[in-house]
Amino acid sequence: MSNNTNDTIYIGKKPLMTYVTSTIVQLATKPDVTIKARGLTTSIAIDVAQVVIKKTKPAFEISNVSIGSESLVSSDGKNRDVSTIEISIKRTTA
Amino acid sequence: MSNNTNDTIYIGKKPLMTYVTSTIVQLATKPDVTIKARGLTTSIAIDVAQVVIKKTKPAFEISNVSIGSESLVSSDGKNRDVSTIEISIKRTTA
Repeated sequence: MSNNTNDTIYIGKKPLMTYVTSTIVQLATKPDVTIKARGLTTSIAIDVAQVVIKKTKPAFEISNVSIGSESLVSSDGKNRDVSTIEISIKRTTA
Repeated sequence: MSNNTNDTIYIGKKPLMTYVTSTIVQLATKPDVTIKARGLTTSIAIDVAQVVIKKTKPAFEISNVSIGSESLVSSDGKNRDVSTIEISIKRTTA
């Protein structure tokens, strides 16, 4: 695993533009940044990636998108599978 | 464009398992099936793909995931960008 933990943006419950700004700030100094989300916030992760690409056009592009699932223990003690998404954004190589 | 329109599953407001069943039925006769969704249903598309893979394991795998955005005219006449996702599932080549 990489020790550059700062090159990952986890999507939570803050406003969309918070994550857009964080991503663009990270991209200023890192070669690539990964946006991660799970459950219902996966759709917000896609929005964040799209806004970042649009606002910085044509400097960055989406290099990879992968989906998966994670097993969590919910508050009632049952295992629940939640879907995850990882979107990698990198500098455009023109 | 392909004329095999049936190899695409569009995610809407039906229960999750409706789309899971449709996808598995399509995969029985097609080499690959694409699950498409936009806006808030993108997270459901990921869930559908994960459930299909899990239920049919190890027969199928996710071959490609791509995200994008589409411009729609909303009811107030303004243009709105919505995020889209396309998840392709294909038979595992063992």
